[in-house]
Amino acid sequence: MKGIRQLAEHLDISIGTVSRALNGKPDVNEETRKRVLEAAESLGYVANQSGRALRKGTTGVIGFMMQTGSEITGQGDTFFMSVFDGVQTVFARHKLDLVALLCSSQEDPNDYLKRVVARGFADGIILSATRRHDARFELLAKRKIPFITLGRSLTDVGQPWLDLDFEGMAEASIDRLVARGHKHIAVTRPHDDMNLGYVFEDQCRATLARHGLNLDARHVFRSTPNEAGGYQIARELSALETRPTAIVLINEAITVGLYRGLVEAGIKPGRDLAIIGRQSPHSQFLSPRLTSFSLSLRDLGIALAESLLATMPAFAEIYRERSARCLWPMDLVPGESD
Amino acid sequence: MKGIRQLAEHLDISIGTVSRALNGKPDVNEETRKRVLEAAESLGYVANQSGRALRKGTTGVIGFMMQTGSEITGQGDTFFMSVFDGVQTVFARHKLDLVALLCSSQEDPNDYLKRVVARGFADGIILSATRRHDARFELLAKRKIPFITLGRSLTDVGQPWLDLDFEGMAEASIDRLVARGHKHIAVTRPHDDMNLGYVFEDQCRATLARHGLNLDARHVFRSTPNEAGGYQIARELSALETRPTAIVLINEAITVGLYRGLVEAGIKPGRDLAIIGRQSPHSQFLSPRLTSFSLSLRDLGIALAESLLATMPAFAEIYRERSARCLWPMDLVPGESD
Repeated sequence: MKGIRQLAEHLDISIGTVSRALNGKPDVNEETRKRVLEAAESLGYVANQSGRALRKGTTGVIGFMMQTGSEITGQGDTFFMSVFDGVQTVFARHKLDLVALLCSSQEDPNDYLKRVVARGFADGIILSATRRHDARFELLAKRKIPFITLGRSLTDVGQPWLDLDFEGMAEASIDRLVARGHKHIAVTRPHDDMNLGYVFEDQCRATLARHGLNLDARHVFRSTPNEAGGYQIARELSALETRPTAIVLINEAITVGLYRGLVEAGIKPGRDLAIIGRQSPHSQFLSPRLTSFSLSLRDLGIALAESLLATMPAFAEIYRERSARCLWPMDLVPGESD
Repeated sequence: MKGIRQLAEHLDISIGTVSRALNGKPDVNEETRKRVLEAAESLGYVANQSGRALRKGTTGVIGFMMQTGSEITGQGDTFFMSVFDGVQTVFARHKLDLVALLCSSQEDPNDYLKRVVARGFADGIILSATRRHDARFELLAKRKIPFITLGRSLTDVGQPWLDLDFEGMAEASIDRLVARGHKHIAVTRPHDDMNLGYVFEDQCRATLARHGLNLDARHVFRSTPNEAGGYQIARELSALETRPTAIVLINEAITVGLYRGLVEAGIKPGRDLAIIGRQSPHSQFLSPRLTSFSLSLRDLGIALAESLLATMPAFAEIYRERSARCLWPMDLVPGESD
């Protein structure tokens, strides 16, 4: 990758002349322009956007921060790929590009974000995997970088957010199971301090209380958000003296592991244990089909992108009707598992 | 996000003095330095890396290009998330950051890559989802941007590559199934022109021929690399007059859909149809457990990163023993499905 300086040295012409030739300015003679363009082609010249970024103060890039590793955020697989597609639909209108900022499992997310901010290549940032307390919000607010969070937190710097309606899911799930006669209902939550775990467990408990029922502490299962976590929950559940008769899964990536673990323990999903979960690429292909909460991930991505742009001066006017904070509803798709 | 210019204007000091204060240079008096640092803090000053990138000619960022959308490349995201973790282990040694360059399903990958290159924010690029013919290779070679491909192609510009050993997988699968008495063996491949589909089908055919067997054209199933694709294969397979007795799946994301479709058609996986596939987070939790080919995705990511760095002058010496092209072996993990 050659820059303008190397190109100028190679041609033995001033940088200014090379720049004017490359940018089609009129005050360059035709022969020089031709020599410059040919050399640019053969040397593999790349216009350095860093220079443009410096002048314009923008990069045209929006970053989506997510964590990598085998114990990923629990949204699994195709969740992010589908959300990204919606985000990109919006960004494409404005010639903005989305890049995923990948924070390694080995690194502290706050340190990582500090470095990303210092690199200065994103005009705005989308944060995912929000924690109960999340210092990243304060960092971005302090640096005055436009951002939105996919998920809430007790940390609140007034930023826009969009979150799945876990309260609505908790309430509808518990109501449905209680109406079907269940009194011992279990819930799952992530092993770490993701904010959604608190929101979900609290609302399940409140809804059970409304029906005069308790959430037994032994019926709150914490696990990593992956198949191994689901399998482990099945083992723990099967070993209990007082087993729940139903369970609500906050995470979609644990389902196949949970099914397998239950079957091995002689507990048939849907018959011996009612299960309500979240839709995933598998949920409709499992036997029995998972009764699950679904949402359009692409539409969620669109809303996320528009709400972020609404906070950026260059785009605010276009998206001023987009609300800054939004609980995203999920729909119950009845299956065979409850 | 404020830059150094705004900071200088706010303080009514020269940019040069502000820069020296921020960078801890000695020729700034203590009071000025204090004023500058306080203003930087309160205004949310961000050191603009674009300026540094211009001076140094590097950005410290490596891009990993991948496609988004619901019909993703077939590797699913846990594949990439685990590979990324390995890649980052290597990059962390050199203070390089990995970002995922997300090409929307709506956009031509070549056009997308051209724009990314023009933005100039990556020092090197990793390409995935390589096609039978892939113009991206030529684009990057021409621009002299260091890159490696995860996957091969008929297009070859001499770049380094790393690919899964699909030939080895095809050969071992067919040998194993033939040894178990199967004569009618089906294979799957992606619906599009991913290079791996050609490599895999060709090697399956060659290995069958070695055993004096044919690959029936009706036993080559093309599908999207997702659960819906697997379900569709099961429907097509069950409708055949002459059904295969075994199938080899090149893709891991189709398995749950395939299992469900087979069960609905009264075909029991492992009993009525032998299945060999690729390991995924689910494969060991399916009933019956999938006999599958596994690999360490993290180690794959480490090799990918080191091979890329071996082509970049700043790091070449450190990684000169890393081979530029490598077929990555996969191990057969026996399950209950064949």
